[in-house]
Amino acid sequence: MIKEKRKVEVIGLELPIFKGGEQINLSELIAQYPIEDGDIIVIAETLISKLEGGVIDRDKIIPSKEAIELAKKTGKDPKVVQVILDEAKEIVKVGKNFIITETKHGFVCANSGVDESNIYKGIKILPKNPDESAEKIRKEIEKLTGKRVGVIISDSVGRPFRKGAVGIAIGVSGILALWDRKGEKDLFGRELKTTEVAIADELASMANVVMGEADEGIPVVIIRGANVPFGNGKGRDLIRPKEEDVFRN
Amino acid sequence: MIKEKRKVEVIGLELPIFKGGEQINLSELIAQYPIEDGDIIVIAETLISKLEGGVIDRDKIIPSKEAIELAKKTGKDPKVVQVILDEAKEIVKVGKNFIITETKHGFVCANSGVDESNIYKGIKILPKNPDESAEKIRKEIEKLTGKRVGVIISDSVGRPFRKGAVGIAIGVSGILALWDRKGEKDLFGRELKTTEVAIADELASMANVVMGEADEGIPVVIIRGANVPFGNGKGRDLIRPKEEDVFRN
Repeated sequence: MIKEKRKVEVIGLELPIFKGGEQINLSELIAQYPIEDGDIIVIAETLISKLEGGVIDRDKIIPSKEAIELAKKTGKDPKVVQVILDEAKEIVKVGKNFIITETKHGFVCANSGVDESNIYKGIKILPKNPDESAEKIRKEIEKLTGKRVGVIISDSVGRPFRKGAVGIAIGVSGILALWDRKGEKDLFGRELKTTEVAIADELASMANVVMGEADEGIPVVIIRGANVPFGNGKGRDLIRPKEEDVFRN
Repeated sequence: MIKEKRKVEVIGLELPIFKGGEQINLSELIAQYPIEDGDIIVIAETLISKLEGGVIDRDKIIPSKEAIELAKKTGKDPKVVQVILDEAKEIVKVGKNFIITETKHGFVCANSGVDESNIYKGIKILPKNPDESAEKIRKEIEKLTGKRVGVIISDSVGRPFRKGAVGIAIGVSGILALWDRKGEKDLFGRELKTTEVAIADELASMANVVMGEADEGIPVVIIRGANVPFGNGKGRDLIRPKEEDVFRN
């Protein structure tokens, strides 16, 4: 009466720990693993950023007057605030101990995604163009392995209404990011009316369960068997434009 | 140089399709599957609601004046709007084609979670007390199998800032829901400062990838190997109280 219908595997890969600036070809490293057709490779943004030179030397940051004032208001380090401002398109909300911004990419998140965890030294920003990074890595891995894959660059973010951080997809290549299932049939044969699934965000959360947040050292996760449609999805497909967002107007 | 460190399996179980009101013992059905210690069993709220009598007969709904007005304003069916109002603690935002409410449980979502998809007939509400339902099922499955498990009741919701729906945990039992990792060490031995992970939401998104939204008929998913700490987590742990939410004040 009950039976297994599908099985998806989520495989966490251990890599050497990088301090940043290493001359490493990440795609070659990942391609050492026996990749299969349809695998989705989720990579933590921290790793991408470190390898792309996204760690800023604290000594080189000179906080502006605006950064110093905002640092006082929020209890944050003025140098960190300067980087947050540099990475922001817009300040969305400021409070006693937080700064929520819209980043230049369009992500609404705390501190423009600027972070000091899991960094050897310095202040880390988000990858400059995560969709491009995902595409580059996907093409390299496909060339090296001869398999067709999807690549997601993931981050962890907080959100309104609910506590705690969850994984999201900031860069996507090779698969759908937003899966429009409108018009498909439900269990009783009626058309689904409004179902758009943020499948790449769900895959990023899925990978996050295996990656962890602390010293697990698992920055790359392979999702096997998810049957997500191949396609030209982008991380930016998941961004709700400000003018369409009732919680920003 | 690259090696497998962890593997998590996400197993989708096929069940008979229920129309609602069947005399089915869901726990006995799930316990037919060879459950293992540490398995996390994610169950779609639709299934729970149907089995708990959460499908309302349209003929029994008489829309109030308020419901009729709100239906005009939003282009919705007045009977559906009446149920949305009955399930709401507060109306959060209303627009041309949407009603966002806080449900009596405290979830902020579209239409109080009221739904007509995957229902044979009628209008379906969310389970009345998903934490209690999760606990009841967990205890029954543990008794039937002799294994220690976690249970999550999942829903799909939209959110601010980002497009598309993702899985969330509305009921939790047996594991942590919000995992506080503050004080743990990062890769370079420094303490994590602020990391609270909405692990039950991530597990619900993980299960959603396997469940699908349409006619997949996979309302129950087993997550095996996730190593989430056992604990007394609740779905309500994940609700950010209105007074702490900068996007509601």
